[in-house]
Amino acid sequence: MSDDGSTGGAPRRRGRPSRTAADEGGPGARERILEAAREQFAERGYDKTSVRGIAKAAGVDPALVHHYFGTKDEVFAAAIEVSFEPTAVVPAIISGPRDAIGERLARFFIGIWENPATRAPLLAIIRSALTHEAAAKVLRGFVLRRLLERIAADLDVPDPKFRAELAASHMIGIAILRYVIQVEPLASAEPETIVAQVAPTLQRYLTQP
Amino acid sequence: MSDDGSTGGAPRRRGRPSRTAADEGGPGARERILEAAREQFAERGYDKTSVRGIAKAAGVDPALVHHYFGTKDEVFAAAIEVSFEPTAVVPAIISGPRDAIGERLARFFIGIWENPATRAPLLAIIRSALTHEAAAKVLRGFVLRRLLERIAADLDVPDPKFRAELAASHMIGIAILRYVIQVEPLASAEPETIVAQVAPTLQRYLTQP
Repeated sequence: MSDDGSTGGAPRRRGRPSRTAADEGGPGARERILEAAREQFAERGYDKTSVRGIAKAAGVDPALVHHYFGTKDEVFAAAIEVSFEPTAVVPAIISGPRDAIGERLARFFIGIWENPATRAPLLAIIRSALTHEAAAKVLRGFVLRRLLERIAADLDVPDPKFRAELAASHMIGIAILRYVIQVEPLASAEPETIVAQVAPTLQRYLTQP
Repeated sequence: MSDDGSTGGAPRRRGRPSRTAADEGGPGARERILEAAREQFAERGYDKTSVRGIAKAAGVDPALVHHYFGTKDEVFAAAIEVSFEPTAVVPAIISGPRDAIGERLARFFIGIWENPATRAPLLAIIRSALTHEAAAKVLRGFVLRRLLERIAADLDVPDPKFRAELAASHMIGIAILRYVIQVEPLASAEPETIVAQVAPTLQRYLTQP
């Protein structure tokens, strides 16, 4: 499959260093791989997605996927993190006025679920985590720990990790009933109606001593 | 497989009316079928469970399963209802002092999840509903509607069904993070620690105008 011809019929030219995969695929390769990973995990589920399949969809060598991300589990974790964009979002949620942190968190969360582009991979994550221990382990270890510890680190409450998990549990449960099971009237409720009810709950978990 | 010999080596004697399955299997047959259904759905998942398999595990003719419950979906719904025992439990939750309804509901819910006998089928239900639309439809239609409408019917709040669903979403999310994903410290928290935090949330959803 991998020949050494430097140019071919493909529209994108790829130079292939003999042993190392670094720098292959150009500056956009990492993003292409992540995008392909999100799509594959969302469409095929955790179990049926492979590093080889992700590489193929991204138009790169599997070695490059390993180079950037490591194992399949680590690609999975990276694909999830992209969906949440915690690096950008968490500081914004935390740094605003403390008396509206519940409202900001509720609105952010409903927002990523209302957006079809982020909803599909999130659904895939939850489905995978509930049916495959390997995926659950990734969600537990890489993602939730990082995301929740980041939020918890800034809380001034007893047992902040426990509080952050209670908040997360509510939002995950809402996602499941609204978007997966689709119970009514929750499934058809206006996002702001949900935010209005849920914000005080999150506020209490995240701020009440 | 089904011969007409009226006695055999089996410890339980069964008389088989020629065409109708009614009365076959004795007075405990319905319960045996339900128990077998719960075990099969819990162990094999929704997709791989069949009426034939349930009948075999219960030691009855498949026709008897159809006679008592109807389709596979209806057996699934009945198996779920047995786990919740809503007939007995909902009135007890609702009829107590109104200012502690959140606490009773939280304690009931954590209780059925802490009990391994009821946890396994509930996990199976959630897993099935998240991965198979047919199972999601059963959960949505038969179970949640019945259970939540029963609770909602007695609430004195605006949009009671929405409120009951918000309460349910929180409890489902806790079950997923605690028992499936097993995030810490939530996974190891004392049941009463969770009840103490969650009860005020449920109380607000179910009673606050």
